Amino acid sequence: MSGTAPNPVIVLVRPQLGENIGKAARAMLNFGLTEMRLVTPRDGWPNPSAGPAASGADVVLEQARVFGSVADAVADCEHVYATTVRKRGVTKPVVTPVQAAGEIHAAPGRSAILFGPERSGLETEDVALARAILTVPINPEFGSLNLAQAVILVAYEWSKGRELAQPPRVDLDPPAPQAELEGLIGHLETLLEDSGYFYPPDRVPTTKLTLRNLLTKPGWTEQELRTLRGVLSALEGKKRARAGQT
Amino acid sequence: MSGTAPNPVIVLVRPQLGENIGKAARAMLNFGLTEMRLVTPRDGWPNPSAGPAASGADVVLEQARVFGSVADAVADCEHVYATTVRKRGVTKPVVTPVQAAGEIHAAPGRSAILFGPERSGLETEDVALARAILTVPINPEFGSLNLAQAVILVAYEWSKGRELAQPPRVDLDPPAPQAELEGLIGHLETLLEDSGYFYPPDRVPTTKLTLRNLLTKPGWTEQELRTLRGVLSALEGKKRARAGQT
Repeated sequence: MSGTAPNPVIVLVRPQLGENIGKAARAMLNFGLTEMRLVTPRDGWPNPSAGPAASGADVVLEQARVFGSVADAVADCEHVYATTVRKRGVTKPVVTPVQAAGEIHAAPGRSAILFGPERSGLETEDVALARAILTVPINPEFGSLNLAQAVILVAYEWSKGRELAQPPRVDLDPPAPQAELEGLIGHLETLLEDSGYFYPPDRVPTTKLTLRNLLTKPGWTEQELRTLRGVLSALEGKKRARAGQT
Repeated sequence: MSGTAPNPVIVLVRPQLGENIGKAARAMLNFGLTEMRLVTPRDGWPNPSAGPAASGADVVLEQARVFGSVADAVADCEHVYATTVRKRGVTKPVVTPVQAAGEIHAAPGRSAILFGPERSGLETEDVALARAILTVPINPEFGSLNLAQAVILVAYEWSKGRELAQPPRVDLDPPAPQAELEGLIGHLETLLEDSGYFYPPDRVPTTKLTLRNLLTKPGWTEQELRTLRGVLSALEGKKRARAGQT
């Protein structure tokens, strides 16, 4: 065991077939991963098709937790990876399963790995929540990994590092959990709405996505986020003070 | 491409379901392996269930060759690996997928990797033909890899030795030059001074240092810095507009 970092959480985002949830659970447990989270599974939860497909990995399914949004599912995680094979118009580092496994073992804090729905994969909004994109290097002429296969490759690669003792990185504060980052993003958006920044209306979603992508990049610590919230409050407070004077 | 060694051959020994042969073909082609050999498949060959399960990896199935014995199937191969999770009463080296991939890339000559039938796995006589046993390190409390999963892990590990199998990193813009970052920092400091953020005076240098440390962390691109400057201008502009109204 690496000692420091907790095992990563596998997050299935809007999974469709219960059978595939079961297969993903089986893939996970083969390599020692047990914590599965489900974001709005299409056919509800529990799903009677999942158990048989898990081939005995029932413990993973029994402990699976259901969330209403990706943000809720990763709120307590310091590192979020979005697994996708597609090129996206987002500016985030792209890592292989090898690199992700190394980071997950070395970094303090909990990691979550997002996997999108069968066929369609993760949406741009899902990817925007993540600090990095995880891509399995694949045959450029034939890329056809199903959900459980993507999960098994990532879990397999992670499992390799378990026995290696990783040097603890005590000199660096860990990034804040995702929920605190969301707090900063929400605060800034409110302030900008009040300032008339979001214009024209049809560009608002794109602009918010751009902001979110650049704010997820740094992996700020809790202390850094507190400082930034202080900055925003100062800008806001000054305006309020003026408003009060009028 | 590794240059010297030919791609390994995947040998399915007495496979039972056509569906699993198709899934194995799909697993192979994802990582650039195309040569499949079948030893006495239970339901004959071709098998109509294989194609749909291959999800487009038809080229692998079309070129698959059928043999009457394991010995015949590997007769032209210099290196034979027997994939099994079980301990056998044979004295052979046991290698992981990582070690096998390294050997296959480094050694001259053709390698074959044997995979046994679903459920029962390779027999002792099959293993006896091999020079080494290939075992995927797995959760000792839950080992449940199916045929296609074993194939995909071995193929994935082999593919790492090929240079083409790297994700492109061209989509990541480089960080902006320091001068542009200084522009952002200066802009923010001006705005914060105007907002009364810097107080008390004796803490100003420390506070500015904290802000600078947190803003240098992300390595924002030029585009990202332009967006942030736009954010600051919006906050500033609103205040000026208000000041103008007074």
